[in-house]
Amino acid sequence: MNTFGKIYTLTSFGESHGPALGGVIDGMPAGMTIDFDEVRRQMSRRRPGRDALVTPRNEADEVEFLSGIMDGITLGSPIGFIIRNTRQRSGDYREMEHAFRPGHADFTYTEKYGLRDWRGGGRASARETAARMVAGALAAQVLAMKGITVKARLVMAGGVPNTATGEDELCDEVREAIVAARAAGDSIGGVVECTVHGVPAGVGEPAAGKLQAMLAAAMMSVPAAKGFEYGMGFAGAARRGSEVIDNWVSAPDDPRGMRAAANNSGGIQGGISNGEDIVMRVAFKPTATLLRDVQTVDDSRNEITLHARGRHDPCVAVRAVPVVEAMAAMTVLDAFLLSKAHIPAGGL
Amino acid sequence: MNTFGKIYTLTSFGESHGPALGGVIDGMPAGMTIDFDEVRRQMSRRRPGRDALVTPRNEADEVEFLSGIMDGITLGSPIGFIIRNTRQRSGDYREMEHAFRPGHADFTYTEKYGLRDWRGGGRASARETAARMVAGALAAQVLAMKGITVKARLVMAGGVPNTATGEDELCDEVREAIVAARAAGDSIGGVVECTVHGVPAGVGEPAAGKLQAMLAAAMMSVPAAKGFEYGMGFAGAARRGSEVIDNWVSAPDDPRGMRAAANNSGGIQGGISNGEDIVMRVAFKPTATLLRDVQTVDDSRNEITLHARGRHDPCVAVRAVPVVEAMAAMTVLDAFLLSKAHIPAGGL
Amino acid sequence: MNTFGKIYTLTSFGESHGPALGGVIDGMPAGMTIDFDEVRRQMSRRRPGRDALVTPRNEADEVEFLSGIMDGITLGSPIGFIIRNTRQRSGDYREMEHAFRPGHADFTYTEKYGLRDWRGGGRASARETAARMVAGALAAQVLAMKGITVKARLVMAGGVPNTATGEDELCDEVREAIVAARAAGDSIGGVVECTVHGVPAGVGEPAAGKLQAMLAAAMMSVPAAKGFEYGMGFAGAARRGSEVIDNWVSAPDDPRGMRAAANNSGGIQGGISNGEDIVMRVAFKPTATLLRDVQTVDDSRNEITLHARGRHDPCVAVRAVPVVEAMAAMTVLDAFLLSKAHIPAGGL
Amino acid sequence: MNTFGKIYTLTSFGESHGPALGGVIDGMPAGMTIDFDEVRRQMSRRRPGRDALVTPRNEADEVEFLSGIMDGITLGSPIGFIIRNTRQRSGDYREMEHAFRPGHADFTYTEKYGLRDWRGGGRASARETAARMVAGALAAQVLAMKGITVKARLVMAGGVPNTATGEDELCDEVREAIVAARAAGDSIGGVVECTVHGVPAGVGEPAAGKLQAMLAAAMMSVPAAKGFEYGMGFAGAARRGSEVIDNWVSAPDDPRGMRAAANNSGGIQGGISNGEDIVMRVAFKPTATLLRDVQTVDDSRNEITLHARGRHDPCVAVRAVPVVEAMAAMTVLDAFLLSKAHIPAGGL
Repeated sequence: MNTFGKIYTLTSFGESHGPALGGVIDGMPAGMTIDFDEVRRQMSRRRPGRDALVTPRNEADEVEFLSGIMDGITLGSPIGFIIRNTRQRSGDYREMEHAFRPGHADFTYTEKYGLRDWRGGGRASARETAARMVAGALAAQVLAMKGITVKARLVMAGGVPNTATGEDELCDEVREAIVAARAAGDSIGGVVECTVHGVPAGVGEPAAGKLQAMLAAAMMSVPAAKGFEYGMGFAGAARRGSEVIDNWVSAPDDPRGMRAAANNSGGIQGGISNGEDIVMRVAFKPTATLLRDVQTVDDSRNEITLHARGRHDPCVAVRAVPVVEAMAAMTVLDAFLLSKAHIPAGGL
Repeated sequence: MNTFGKIYTLTSFGESHGPALGGVIDGMPAGMTIDFDEVRRQMSRRRPGRDALVTPRNEADEVEFLSGIMDGITLGSPIGFIIRNTRQRSGDYREMEHAFRPGHADFTYTEKYGLRDWRGGGRASARETAARMVAGALAAQVLAMKGITVKARLVMAGGVPNTATGEDELCDEVREAIVAARAAGDSIGGVVECTVHGVPAGVGEPAAGKLQAMLAAAMMSVPAAKGFEYGMGFAGAARRGSEVIDNWVSAPDDPRGMRAAANNSGGIQGGISNGEDIVMRVAFKPTATLLRDVQTVDDSRNEITLHARGRHDPCVAVRAVPVVEAMAAMTVLDAFLLSKAHIPAGGL
Repeated sequence: MNTFGKIYTLTSFGESHGPALGGVIDGMPAGMTIDFDEVRRQMSRRRPGRDALVTPRNEADEVEFLSGIMDGITLGSPIGFIIRNTRQRSGDYREMEHAFRPGHADFTYTEKYGLRDWRGGGRASARETAARMVAGALAAQVLAMKGITVKARLVMAGGVPNTATGEDELCDEVREAIVAARAAGDSIGGVVECTVHGVPAGVGEPAAGKLQAMLAAAMMSVPAAKGFEYGMGFAGAARRGSEVIDNWVSAPDDPRGMRAAANNSGGIQGGISNGEDIVMRVAFKPTATLLRDVQTVDDSRNEITLHARGRHDPCVAVRAVPVVEAMAAMTVLDAFLLSKAHIPAGGL
Repeated sequence: MNTFGKIYTLTSFGESHGPALGGVIDGMPAGMTIDFDEVRRQMSRRRPGRDALVTPRNEADEVEFLSGIMDGITLGSPIGFIIRNTRQRSGDYREMEHAFRPGHADFTYTEKYGLRDWRGGGRASARETAARMVAGALAAQVLAMKGITVKARLVMAGGVPNTATGEDELCDEVREAIVAARAAGDSIGGVVECTVHGVPAGVGEPAAGKLQAMLAAAMMSVPAAKGFEYGMGFAGAARRGSEVIDNWVSAPDDPRGMRAAANNSGGIQGGISNGEDIVMRVAFKPTATLLRDVQTVDDSRNEITLHARGRHDPCVAVRAVPVVEAMAAMTVLDAFLLSKAHIPAGGL
C-alpha cells in the first residue's frame, strides 16, 4: 500500500527520523537522458529550511540514484534511489512519545500497528513526499518530450488570494498572512491549483479508471490534503447546466479540428482527457502542529497539555505546490502509458 | 479498469442500451445471509422513472444473481449478477450518432477507441451505476454486522440548501428549484454529504492507500462528480489551525477511552480511521443534457445545433445519493477487509 | 482473486450447479470484428458430452454476450457474458454433502469458508474453465491479427504417447488407454504441450513479470494441473550446458536478422520473448473421481466408503487441451498489450 | 513489474554492476523483533565466492536497512534496504557489449528497451535474487512464529541424485559432477525440492489465486528456472487415479481430526492448502555461460566466436536452493496474510 500508480509506479519508504527515505520507480521508459540538475531544482522547491516561511529543518535532500540508469540514460529497469536524513533531532519528540497529538496520526498508527515511530511523525510525516518529488521530476521530463507540462501554484492561503503568478511565488498579502500566523504560534490552510497542458485526447479509462479518480486518489494521498476538485468543481454544483455547458466549436488550427468554447469540464469527459487543459484544485488544512499549548490525551488516556517544539511549516500549502505538481506528473504519465495498452484494434 | 476495490471488488460491465448491465462481486465474506428485499429497496432508490423529479426512463432494475449464493447464503465465491435493460429507446439517439454532445464523453470515447456506442452514452451512461448499487447494497449488509452504517443525503441543489433530513427526502425549496430547472429545459448541480458511522480505529493505510484517497477515487469515479472533500474540506483551507484543531478528550465510556472534542478531521488521520464518524461531501455538476438547443460540432467537425430528446434527470445529484452510499459502503468494506491482512504480529 | 491478467483480464464467476457461469473480459481492443462461429467452435472443443471419452454431462455451453460489442464489433468496454447451466443433476451429489472426497477441494473449501457448495464441486469444478474458453477464444482472434497462433495437443496420457497430430486428435493407443481406464472405473493423467508461434521479440517483463512466470501461473490455475515447464524443462536439468546451449546464427531472411540454431530456451530469455516459438508443457493428474469404492472421512471425521455416481472424465487432460490454449492466448495477449506500455522513450 | 506479491510484497531494483541492489518490503506485520544474524546467515547461503563450487565473485552482500524498523522492531511501514555492489569488474564484459550471448537475455533486452546494460547481464543477472533473499529471510521469521517452516534442498544435479540431506549439503557424487563440469569449461542443471511444513488448511484462493499458481509464478521468476511441479507433478501424469488417490483417514491427534493417508496432492487441493506439507520441485537449466568458445552473432548480425571470462557458477541450482526457500517463504506469507482478508462472515 506504499505503491503509487499502475504502469509508472513509485514504491516509497522511509520515516521522518530514520536513516533514509527513498523509493523504487518502475515503468520508466528506456533511453531517456535524465536531467539531474532539474531533479535537484525540483527537490529544492520542496526542501525544508530554504525560506523563512517554511520549517527550519535544513535538509540537503540529495538524491542518490542506485539503479536503472547507465551513463545518465534510463535502462527501462527500476530506478532505486535514497535520500539520507541528516538533520534528525528526535530529542525534540521524546516528550511526545506517549502523547496523541491533535490532528496528527499518533493515535491511528498506534491503534493500527500496536506501536508507532514517535520521532517526528515517523511514516506519517510530510517528509515522505520527498520521494514523490523524485518520481514526479522524472515523470515531468518524460511528459515534456510529449509537449505535456504540469504547473501548480498556491491560489489562496488562509482566506487570502495569492495574486503572484510565478512558480512558487507569493504576493505580499499572503506572505504577511503566513508571517502573522507564525508570530501567533498558529498556522493557516491553503488551496493549490494545478494545470496540465498538452495531454492528448484519449487518456484515462471509463468506470473505475477515470482520470479524475486517479488524480483525486493521488492528491488525497498528500499529507494535509482535505479536498479535490476539477473543472467547475464545487462551484459548479450551485449552477445551472445552461451556464456551464461545455460547447464544442470548430477550430481548424487545432489538431482535433475543434476545441471547447469554455473549459468548464476541466479537460476530462467521461473519465478520459479531451485535449483541453486539465485543471484541478487541492485544499490543504492548516498544519496541526501549533507552537502554543494544546490540550489532548496520552496513551494512558490522561488529559495533558502539550507545547510543540518541533520544526514546522506555518502553511504547509506553500511546500505542497511542487508535491501537487509531482503527483500530477506521475499520474498523468501513468495514465498516458496505460492508454498505450488500451487501444483500438487498428493500433495493435 | 472496470474493477473497483482490492479485496472486496466489483468488476462491472454494460452499456446503457445494450442487452444488460451486470458485474462480478469478489471478496464477499462467506456465510452471510443476504437480505434480497433490502437489495431491491436500495435498487429502487436509484431507479429511474420512480418520481417526477428524475428521468422518465422506467426500468425495473431487477437483479438476477447467478453465482456465489446457495440457499440465500454467500459461499465466498464470486457473485455474478445481471440487470436486463428493458426500456432501451435507441432511436432517440440515432440522430446523435455523429454529434459530439457538449459535456458528454462522445468525443473522448471516439478519440480513445476509434468508435463509440452512440446509444444513450453507452458505457459512459450513469446507468452503469446500477451495478454499483448491487455491490454497495451487499457491502452495507456486511458492514451492518459490524455496527457500521452509511448514510448520504443531498445537502444542496443548484445553490439551494436541502433542509429535509430523511433518506432521499427533499425540502420544498429544492423540489421547486428542480422543477423550475426542468421547466426551463435546464438542469442544476448539487452536493451530497455522506457519513459513515461505526468504523473502528485502524482502517486505512499510510501513503498510497490512505482511506481518504480510496474514498476520493471511488467518489470521483461516479459520473458527473466534480469534487470531493472530507472533514473541514475546502472551507478549512481558509481557516487558522487554532480554529480547527482536533483535540482529544478523555472519554471513559468510549471503547477508545477518548474521543475527538470536535471532529474536524472527518474521522481519518494520516490515512487511517480514528473511530469518529467519517464525513465527506461530493459535488455533482448540472446534467449536461439540456432540453433546449445547444451548439456543438459533429464528427466531421461541422458546427451543428442539437436538441436533445432523450430521457434525463434535471438534477443528477438526487439519484446520486444512493450511489454515493454504495461507493462509500464498498470502499469502507474493502479497506476494512484489507486491514485484516495488515496487522500487528501479535494478531497473526 | 477470480481475475486473470493485468491488461487483458477475465473476471470469472460461477459454480458447477448454480444458475450460470460467466465472466467479464476487460482490456479488449476496440474495433475488432468478433467471429462468433469460431467462439462456438472453441467452446465445443471443451464441451462435455461431445464424445465417448469425456464426461456424459451434456451441456450446450451457449455463450450469451451482454455488453462490450455492438453490431458484432468490440467497443473497448468490458464484455460481460454468461453461460447457463442446463444439465445440473445436483441429486447425484446429495449423499456427498458431508463427505470429504479424496483428491477434491471439499475439505479445503469447508475449512476456508466455513461452508461449501457440495453440488458437483461448486466453484472448484473444472466447469469453471468454460468462462476461460470464451476469453481465450476472443484473445486468439486478436492475436491472429498479429500473426500469432496458439496450438496445444495432448502428447501423453497415462504413460502412452499420443502420436496423432491433428487438433484434439488421439491415436488408437491413447484411446484404448482411456477406454481401459474407464472400464476399470479408473482414470489416467496426461501431458499437454502448447506452442505459441509468431510472438515478436520483446514481450514479457524482467523480474516478477517474466513471461514464463505469467504462463506458469495461468497454467497452474487450471484444475488438475500439477506441473509446468517450458523449453528444455525438467529434462534440461539433467543435461550439460554444452549440450543445450542456444546459439544464435545469422538469418538474413528472418525479421530479426538472426535465429536460434536450436530453440532450447523455448522462446523466452530473461523473461522476455525472443521471437522463437514459445513451447511449454503442462502435466495433469488423473481425475480424482473414480467409479469404484474409495475410503475417506466425512465432516464429522467418521471414516466412510464412497461410491461416486457423478459424470466424470476418465482423462481430464483430453478436455484440458483447449483450456491450455485459452490460457496461453489470454496470457500472451495480456503480456503483448502490457509491452505496449513499457516502451523505449523513442516509442512514446 | 518488479513487485512480487499482493499483501506481503517485495519491489526490487538493481543491476549486477550498478552501485547497489535493493528493495522495498511492504506488508510486514508490525511489532516483530528481527533476527538480523539470521538474515545475515541466509544471505551467506546465496553469497557468491563462498565455496569452490560457485562463482568466485566475492561479494560481502551486507544489507543496510533504511526504514520500517525502530530499535530492531518492525513498524508496519515499508522496509527499504540496499546491498552495495563492491566487486563489479565491468571490464570483463566490455568485449561483450555488442555480442548476443547464447542462452542469455542480451538480445531480448536490446529488443525490448532499445539498449541494455551489458555489464554482467545488468538487471537480468541472478545477482538480482540477493534482494529476494532479504524479503524471504524476513518472511521466514514471521512464518516461524506460526510454526511454519520452509526447507529446500538440491535433489539432483546434471542427472546425479544428491543423497546428502543437510541444508545446502552436497554428496560426493554431486560435488564430483560439478567439479568435472567446471574442469571441462561446462555447466550442469539441477532440481531443487522445497517443503513447506505447518501451513494451516485454508490458505490460497480459488481460480486465479490458486496457491500453486502463486508458487509457480514465484519459482518461474527465478533466473534459470525452467520447470515447476508440486505433489505428484509430471510423474503423476503417467499414472492411474487409483494409484495416486489421496484418501483422508481419521486422525484424532491431528488438529484437523484427519490426515491424508499419502500426500499425493502435495498439500494443496482446489488451490487451497489442506494442512499437509506443501511439496514442490523446481528445475534449473545448466548455466548458459560456458568457459569455452561459443558461436553466436553480435548486434550487427555478424557471426562471432565468444570466449567468456566472467565469473560464473558451474551449477546455478546449488545457489538456487536458498532462493527457492526465499520465494516459497514470501509466497506462503503473502497467501497467509491474504487469507486473513477472505474470511467467513463469522470471523469478521
